[in-house]
Amino acid sequence: MIEALNKAFCVLPGVGGKSAQRFVYHLLEKNREGGLELAKALINAMENIKNCASCRTLSEKKLCDICANHKRDQAQLCVVETPADIYAIEKSGAYQGKYFVLSGYLSPIDGVGAAELGLDELQQKLNQQQVKEIILATNATIEGEVTAHYISNMAQQFDIQITRIAHGIPIGGELEYADINTIAHALSGRKKYLSD
Amino acid sequence: MIEALNKAFCVLPGVGGKSAQRFVYHLLEKNREGGLELAKALINAMENIKNCASCRTLSEKKLCDICANHKRDQAQLCVVETPADIYAIEKSGAYQGKYFVLSGYLSPIDGVGAAELGLDELQQKLNQQQVKEIILATNATIEGEVTAHYISNMAQQFDIQITRIAHGIPIGGELEYADINTIAHALSGRKKYLSD
Repeated sequence: MIEALNKAFCVLPGVGGKSAQRFVYHLLEKNREGGLELAKALINAMENIKNCASCRTLSEKKLCDICANHKRDQAQLCVVETPADIYAIEKSGAYQGKYFVLSGYLSPIDGVGAAELGLDELQQKLNQQQVKEIILATNATIEGEVTAHYISNMAQQFDIQITRIAHGIPIGGELEYADINTIAHALSGRKKYLSD
Repeated sequence: MIEALNKAFCVLPGVGGKSAQRFVYHLLEKNREGGLELAKALINAMENIKNCASCRTLSEKKLCDICANHKRDQAQLCVVETPADIYAIEKSGAYQGKYFVLSGYLSPIDGVGAAELGLDELQQKLNQQQVKEIILATNATIEGEVTAHYISNMAQQFDIQITRIAHGIPIGGELEYADINTIAHALSGRKKYLSD
């Protein structure tokens, strides 16, 4: 029974036998109440959380809070790979538009094509002509770039602005410690410096 | 619901908001089946795992496998702080005796005294005169040393050998990188070197 729980914990990303064992003994010895709470929360979430009918993010309601919020700008649509990306952008407070979640990136070798990423739905959304700007915020990885490129090609048939979030040296980051790809990107993507 | 699960995961040792979020999104997006399995294993373990009536380790049966195994040497009793310690010693394969689990260490300030550590039960066990050697395998921390000292005092009224596991440089460890306390301990605990 301990072994079974140990093994069950290993489904979590980054959790191996040692961490799982630590979790198991901690819960059994010090916090059984917390363990049962976790079990309840797991069942509740796994069974009831679906995808938002509009943006495909994880949501317990048919429409997620952002899609249901009429104060958000319908003219901007930010395309991200995962719901966690939405969470990160929302925390920045710098965006007031809507989102679209791909739930992954193009990867034909894994059987992930346009259909799996919901690009048909995205096309329909663009076709409704409310979106004026599509912001490609897929990750700065090869897969993310390829996916952004593909969506950009698709979006070109509509009369909308297509943008990509900026990549470069992170704020607070030091040039000395940035990797060469980031530096190359930061240089090629340099902007005119405006002094007041 | 996502927030609730996030919070529930934070009961695990070493898991904060960021890791919890990673767990939640991973399960929801990629492995709901695994999440439900984990919930079931949690409920099963939290509700059914009790303490062994003899050695106090975690066990789903009245007597744990080691206590129920008559091939294990009843004359040796190894006293450890936690069930995880038993697991570690068993993996070494170097011990064939029985165990006794304190489930902690003496800590009057936290209200953990002799009764909480089951020292009455331990005393009864020693009183039955089957144990010929008690091996103190509490941790090499101040609390572990104090606890070992206390148990050693208690065991002195019985005609049994009292031993403490050896402390020193770990096997494969380099002297250069060992901490000063370990080196001091390794020196003061030096043994006669027997060449063949």
